[in-house]
Amino acid sequence: MRKTQMAGLTPAHFLWQVSDRIAVIRLNRPERKNPLTFDSYAELRDTFRALAHAEDVDVVVLASNGGNFCSGGDVHEIIGPLVGMEMPELLAFTRMTGDLVRAMIHCNKPVIAAVEGICVGAGAIMAMAADLRLAAPSARAAFLFTRVGLAGCDMGACAMLPRIVGQGRAAELLYTGRVLAAEEGERWGFWNSLHEDVEAAAMALARQVAAGPVWAHGITKTQLMQEWNMGLDQAIEAEAQAQAICMKTRDFERAYRAFVARERPVFEGN
Amino acid sequence: MRKTQMAGLTPAHFLWQVSDRIAVIRLNRPERKNPLTFDSYAELRDTFRALAHAEDVDVVVLASNGGNFCSGGDVHEIIGPLVGMEMPELLAFTRMTGDLVRAMIHCNKPVIAAVEGICVGAGAIMAMAADLRLAAPSARAAFLFTRVGLAGCDMGACAMLPRIVGQGRAAELLYTGRVLAAEEGERWGFWNSLHEDVEAAAMALARQVAAGPVWAHGITKTQLMQEWNMGLDQAIEAEAQAQAICMKTRDFERAYRAFVARERPVFEGN
Amino acid sequence: MRKTQMAGLTPAHFLWQVSDRIAVIRLNRPERKNPLTFDSYAELRDTFRALAHAEDVDVVVLASNGGNFCSGGDVHEIIGPLVGMEMPELLAFTRMTGDLVRAMIHCNKPVIAAVEGICVGAGAIMAMAADLRLAAPSARAAFLFTRVGLAGCDMGACAMLPRIVGQGRAAELLYTGRVLAAEEGERWGFWNSLHEDVEAAAMALARQVAAGPVWAHGITKTQLMQEWNMGLDQAIEAEAQAQAICMKTRDFERAYRAFVARERPVFEGN
Repeated sequence: MRKTQMAGLTPAHFLWQVSDRIAVIRLNRPERKNPLTFDSYAELRDTFRALAHAEDVDVVVLASNGGNFCSGGDVHEIIGPLVGMEMPELLAFTRMTGDLVRAMIHCNKPVIAAVEGICVGAGAIMAMAADLRLAAPSARAAFLFTRVGLAGCDMGACAMLPRIVGQGRAAELLYTGRVLAAEEGERWGFWNSLHEDVEAAAMALARQVAAGPVWAHGITKTQLMQEWNMGLDQAIEAEAQAQAICMKTRDFERAYRAFVARERPVFEGN
Repeated sequence: MRKTQMAGLTPAHFLWQVSDRIAVIRLNRPERKNPLTFDSYAELRDTFRALAHAEDVDVVVLASNGGNFCSGGDVHEIIGPLVGMEMPELLAFTRMTGDLVRAMIHCNKPVIAAVEGICVGAGAIMAMAADLRLAAPSARAAFLFTRVGLAGCDMGACAMLPRIVGQGRAAELLYTGRVLAAEEGERWGFWNSLHEDVEAAAMALARQVAAGPVWAHGITKTQLMQEWNMGLDQAIEAEAQAQAICMKTRDFERAYRAFVARERPVFEGN
Repeated sequence: MRKTQMAGLTPAHFLWQVSDRIAVIRLNRPERKNPLTFDSYAELRDTFRALAHAEDVDVVVLASNGGNFCSGGDVHEIIGPLVGMEMPELLAFTRMTGDLVRAMIHCNKPVIAAVEGICVGAGAIMAMAADLRLAAPSARAAFLFTRVGLAGCDMGACAMLPRIVGQGRAAELLYTGRVLAAEEGERWGFWNSLHEDVEAAAMALARQVAAGPVWAHGITKTQLMQEWNMGLDQAIEAEAQAQAICMKTRDFERAYRAFVARERPVFEGN
């Protein structure tokens, strides 16, 4: 089984930093509110795919830069070229963007978005594809696809957004493309919580999650996806199997030994 | 492909008006809070089916009348006859009511409910089958089926209500039949928003939605249903295909040209 | 068809009381906040399975004891033995715990949880497997699995929790194991409502539900599960069939006759 070290990664199209087994990713065109380009889409997809095999990263934080998270697909570098492309190229593009979401949900590590300011279009989808979403009061999310003449179904939005905020609120955001303000987003469950210093809060949460049983976290992440469209009876059997697997980890035994010894367990991710 | 004009429709069992490509439907027995009858069910079903092919309507508003939305199936004209019917007739009836919901969710146009006062039984289901639900402070929704000795599973309620307000709140409304007050309904996401003049708000929202890329809106509506019980991986591929289709519309190009020219895009629905 | 009387049940591992066709179950080790053991798991599972055939019980209340609901699987009596078990035994255990949830969701009777104080681990899952969840201000729910080195996927949690509170909030609770306070839980829809005297409130709700058409309630419960992962079109046909069945009950006729006579219907559950 392939195991990789990713701390030394030097991506060309975003910033990357690993410390304390937490990888921090941030787009790096703050003067334009961090748009995505063909190149950054592909490099992010490849990085999340590689993260599934990284042995030196336990949690990923998708952070903001210059007060904004991501302004979505760049109008000049993405939307312009798409206008006039033939169908095979268009589908290749939409599949690549969808593959970024797939890579995020299959990367086996919890992903925490730390959102400041603009978080729109594909940026809002990336936030949704994270497991946990923390936001600053400045956060402004919007599913702008309708504003550029497209449908709301982009990178899985019509599947993910109703699961997060409910079908009615999702429909409103997708048909209107309106801005979801930070407090409203927290009230709806789009944001897990709001923080004046959202990056500090996200890093604290990342450290807390990384101090847990990270191998088991990977199973939690897997099951949240596996059970997306199972019947409840099937899901119960799936969890019986998945949890029995976790009961064979040493982390489970470590937790028990620590409890008996009245100590705090130290998990090792195996 | 069949294309129809519906502005001139003269339905027998509800009011119908089309202006600015927005169709307004309202039941018309305000003295009895607008109950449904066998005839109005069937005519509504047929009308929503026809709307899928209408080229002069982009958005539908389901409005109130005399301060109420709909009191559900009429006790004398529907419930009375049902008591004592044989099974084939009963199933024909429940299928017809379900077909009204199906016609609404497959009509290819966003449907906005503008709810005042009583919104109960089948009326509450019609509100749920709308994409967006605006309400007046007077709105009182209730799933009364349990009050008339029936189960909460009517016209798709056990599938739709949990998706809108969550499983626990849905179960409470369905087992008890209790009234959901307007503010509580907004807090739960059953209502998108509350408005003193809900019809004016719904018409403003309808105009906003109708000013968007209406053909792409039809794809948004289609995908919200298609992905209802897909796995997320499947949904991502479905959206890659659906959005690639939308990238071949002229509305997508129009939005790009308008952006470059720093103008507001004028969408034409193709 | 097997019909049983359950009022006289004398379970060994929990308290049991039936009055007014309402069964009250409460764990009975209040000095340890009511942990589950291998024996109580199995006996609860068998009892809920038997409830599907009980003709003297219409509603079940899962109550608290000594100010707490349930502290989950006992560390000494369950977690200790699990450490070191072989896989067949582990899977037998996780399947038994899952079978308790299955028995609850297939028992054909509405289940109401009345939660005070500690409601964690498997106790929080039991609360989720109830149809309705009332809580005292003291209620503290937590999905502690991650704290003991396990994954959040336990007894169906990754399927149920997102349906109740949304995907983002569910992920937070499952990855962190943090306590959900009572007010926050009500705001999220985890609790249906909060009550100073939650048991009195739960009993009043149980009486109200038991006064309804209890046979039809069983169909509501069935359909809420059946439609869990159906497409909406399928769910509509499923409800057309299920509701047509209910229209053949005498309770439906009773409700109609009472309405015409301006009386309150008296349902008999057939």
